[in-house]
Amino acid sequence: MQITVYDATLREGAQSAGTSFSLDDKLKLVDLLDRLGVAYIEAGNPGSNAKDAALFARMQHKKLRHATLAAFGSTARVGRPPDQDANLAALLSAETPAVAIFGKSWDFHVGAVLHCSLEDNLQLIESSVAFLKSKGREVIYDAEHFFDGWKHNPEYALQTIEAAQRGGADWICLCDTNGGCLPHEIRAGVDQAFDYAHERFDHEMRLGIHTHDDSGLAIANSIEAVRAGATMAQCTLNGWGERCGNANLFSLVGNLQLKMGCRCLEDDALKQFLPASLFASEVANRSPDKRAPFVGRDAFAHKAGMHIDAVKKAPETFEHIPPESVGNERRILISEVSGRSGVLDKLTAFVPGIAKDSPEVVQIVDMLKEKEAIGYQFEVAEASFQLLVRRKLAMHKPFFDVREFKVVATTPAEPMHTATVMVRVQVGGVEEITAADGDGPVNALDLALRKALERFFPSLKRMRLSDFKVRVLNSKDTASSVRVLIESTDGESVWTTVGVHADILQASFFALYDSLEYKLLLDHNRFEAERATRNRDSSSHLDPK
Amino acid sequence: MQITVYDATLREGAQSAGTSFSLDDKLKLVDLLDRLGVAYIEAGNPGSNAKDAALFARMQHKKLRHATLAAFGSTARVGRPPDQDANLAALLSAETPAVAIFGKSWDFHVGAVLHCSLEDNLQLIESSVAFLKSKGREVIYDAEHFFDGWKHNPEYALQTIEAAQRGGADWICLCDTNGGCLPHEIRAGVDQAFDYAHERFDHEMRLGIHTHDDSGLAIANSIEAVRAGATMAQCTLNGWGERCGNANLFSLVGNLQLKMGCRCLEDDALKQFLPASLFASEVANRSPDKRAPFVGRDAFAHKAGMHIDAVKKAPETFEHIPPESVGNERRILISEVSGRSGVLDKLTAFVPGIAKDSPEVVQIVDMLKEKEAIGYQFEVAEASFQLLVRRKLAMHKPFFDVREFKVVATTPAEPMHTATVMVRVQVGGVEEITAADGDGPVNALDLALRKALERFFPSLKRMRLSDFKVRVLNSKDTASSVRVLIESTDGESVWTTVGVHADILQASFFALYDSLEYKLLLDHNRFEAERATRNRDSSSHLDPK
Repeated sequence: MQITVYDATLREGAQSAGTSFSLDDKLKLVDLLDRLGVAYIEAGNPGSNAKDAALFARMQHKKLRHATLAAFGSTARVGRPPDQDANLAALLSAETPAVAIFGKSWDFHVGAVLHCSLEDNLQLIESSVAFLKSKGREVIYDAEHFFDGWKHNPEYALQTIEAAQRGGADWICLCDTNGGCLPHEIRAGVDQAFDYAHERFDHEMRLGIHTHDDSGLAIANSIEAVRAGATMAQCTLNGWGERCGNANLFSLVGNLQLKMGCRCLEDDALKQFLPASLFASEVANRSPDKRAPFVGRDAFAHKAGMHIDAVKKAPETFEHIPPESVGNERRILISEVSGRSGVLDKLTAFVPGIAKDSPEVVQIVDMLKEKEAIGYQFEVAEASFQLLVRRKLAMHKPFFDVREFKVVATTPAEPMHTATVMVRVQVGGVEEITAADGDGPVNALDLALRKALERFFPSLKRMRLSDFKVRVLNSKDTASSVRVLIESTDGESVWTTVGVHADILQASFFALYDSLEYKLLLDHNRFEAERATRNRDSSSHLDPK
Repeated sequence: MQITVYDATLREGAQSAGTSFSLDDKLKLVDLLDRLGVAYIEAGNPGSNAKDAALFARMQHKKLRHATLAAFGSTARVGRPPDQDANLAALLSAETPAVAIFGKSWDFHVGAVLHCSLEDNLQLIESSVAFLKSKGREVIYDAEHFFDGWKHNPEYALQTIEAAQRGGADWICLCDTNGGCLPHEIRAGVDQAFDYAHERFDHEMRLGIHTHDDSGLAIANSIEAVRAGATMAQCTLNGWGERCGNANLFSLVGNLQLKMGCRCLEDDALKQFLPASLFASEVANRSPDKRAPFVGRDAFAHKAGMHIDAVKKAPETFEHIPPESVGNERRILISEVSGRSGVLDKLTAFVPGIAKDSPEVVQIVDMLKEKEAIGYQFEVAEASFQLLVRRKLAMHKPFFDVREFKVVATTPAEPMHTATVMVRVQVGGVEEITAADGDGPVNALDLALRKALERFFPSLKRMRLSDFKVRVLNSKDTASSVRVLIESTDGESVWTTVGVHADILQASFFALYDSLEYKLLLDHNRFEAERATRNRDSSSHLDPK
């Protein structure tokens, strides 16, 4: 069975606590979803905020490979003809091929929230859908609170989806809006919706399902709806959404496609699930959930001795699917085995032609294991990984040398700063010494380093830190080990570096150092690429074939 | 329907990545589970490690109010009579009223892992159970891989549980060991087990269910088993367990009791779910999962404007249960509303007689909101909370004053330390100045402060930091805000303090300062309590009635 995957990350995900997507973040997520091959991307509510309107404007000039873009909003307001309604006008102005609108299915809410008659609500639904259809849009009708409405007044809830059907909706998506339903309730509701449609409608109804995880049942509820015949599954990356979140795309597609024989995405896309999940977490600035089904770092991690023995004899004892099928891998804890094939994939990107079984690769894998054992983490810190490999393979000549730095911090603090750092750097035999004040020693160190180096590398002026994360490892007292992750950007590229040390200042210094080195490496590579292009252009000029 | 709650946190939770429980941690969790009123606490595998054996030794002198303690292990080994088997002997030596043993249900594993005949395995199961029953133990038989076995060879899987039943097992627990089953498969398996039992057994069979979350379906699978007639639900605190974890006690009991009318725990215990979840996270040194169903900080958090409006008009629109029923609360994001009733509960513990509607309480709630808005978090940092309130109510006279500190850190680092801190303190008009080296500035500051104060307060020598956590808030660059949580202990008590500042040194200083103040407050209170006892004793001595 073909299942249409409808992703709502850009709307639902943005509504989750602690998450705010910039326009740039949203564009990155659209790209990611399109690469995964989802059928629909719900990109936001053009009527609710200017940021979403800006995104739709940008998307008009962007071509997607697989996905159809959808704008989300509500039906027309009560008492307003659809062609004079601001919500619907905003939806049309987004110029998307598809539009999703939600309407009320729960009789109680029609009176309590909309303040109109039950009949008026049906009319509102039908006319709103029909209006959008008349403008050539594909229409997904979201039946908000369908299951709660159906529990209280089944007949009326079914009439609301009949109204959408009469209006010409292409899809009717049944929503468990507050996430409170149990799987057998979802099953019964979807069954009855289909029964009703068979009796009343003269053409087939296509149903979708939209679930929330408030009861820990988002995946089970979606699965039950699909088993009852729903063919659209709404979900979000990593399950992000209001409150406890929505159905997690990776878990839902993992179950549907790998266990139930549904076709949701290309098999190759499933093999990208782990990197896609990590990438999305980075964009959203959220820590990846290590325990997440399918894509969690611990999803195939084995610790108990008996389990490790058994899984080596017969993997299916403690692994419900082959980890590789979703781009994950088995981890045997304690004797940490770090993703060798992943390492190789990354290596070939910047060391072209390196042989898979060369001694260098073995050395690099060994070095990674050593580094990870002391707390390094390279899944996201690819810039540090690249520098590490280049240094190991003698492919990297440092751009600068930090001879020393001194930190002085005092309490009571100065009015404008709390710490001062002096730094001494050397570039090509020339020394520079300078100092900077900052909000704390790490901030001061960052400022001082860049101040000293800008004299030699003016391009560093355009660089800035965009994220800073600290994690205390084996946190048993203040002398334990600290991991610092730093994300930097120069407006064109974004890169992440990592440092680990017992002293947070030293750990931050390592990550800052790598960040500056990587920026200069990027500049160097860009310069070389431009020169190569120039040379090619001039040689093609000489040879006007 | 009565559902017997069987908690496996101490075993399964300890097998999850990144978790290691000390003996003391395990005792704390046993207390917590007993207070919640679970029926069984699986406390570990006495045959597998010395730590678990020590726990069972300690538990022999401990009285539990509700729970029955269970030791966990395997059936006897192949070819060994039960009364000569080391595993079973270890289980008996734990001296617990209940014993849980697992055996193989999957025909394939009997050959591939146990290397014995199918018939021998049945014999092994029956004789192991019968032996433990003959020693007066209540026996829970865990049918490992029951559902996978049943899918491959249903007849044999059913024979294994029949063998346990013949041996006299009190409970037979069906396990989805690799977490790969879908809810309808669980349903069919449990249904068939009951059908088989009705045909074959002359007395009723009591079934349990043990699920894992590898497919994101642990809760749904447990619910389906209960709907099919299982009356024991195995689960763990916060769902901790191997890989993606087990069924989460809070989610499972929340659904069973609040939605399906099952009796699992006292209703009052459910109201303790949120604090219980946080307490367990602290013991395990794991970050609480904010998105967790029922007990997550965001489980009832509303952000979208439309949702906030609707939830105020009719809470059931976006809240599947009343948050208070599990000790949680509604959070309207942006305009942060912090748990007033929770605050009041805590206040009365150390400000006896404070009136619920006094102006002081209003002021404290306002102050908390302000503090939380800038990143403070008091759920776990109760020592800082107490000091904050005491200062606000003018109930606290500082024990010492830190006049200034200076931090000097250099790179290249000294061989034995990376930072030096000078500190100047004043106690009762007497000044002390000293300095200490450390592994990083925070460590040096901790050492210097205690060194300076020990002259005045020798009891500080027994105090040490037992945990240190750093979180970067609104992490957009190195000048963003940092929250430091410090856990300290003096061997008798454990307390947690918090500091927030743009500068990690300042944030650490605030948390260290509170930690030292709180230790001195504890000493002061202990001293006062002892003096009161002495006075009472001496007065009763004078009055020999």
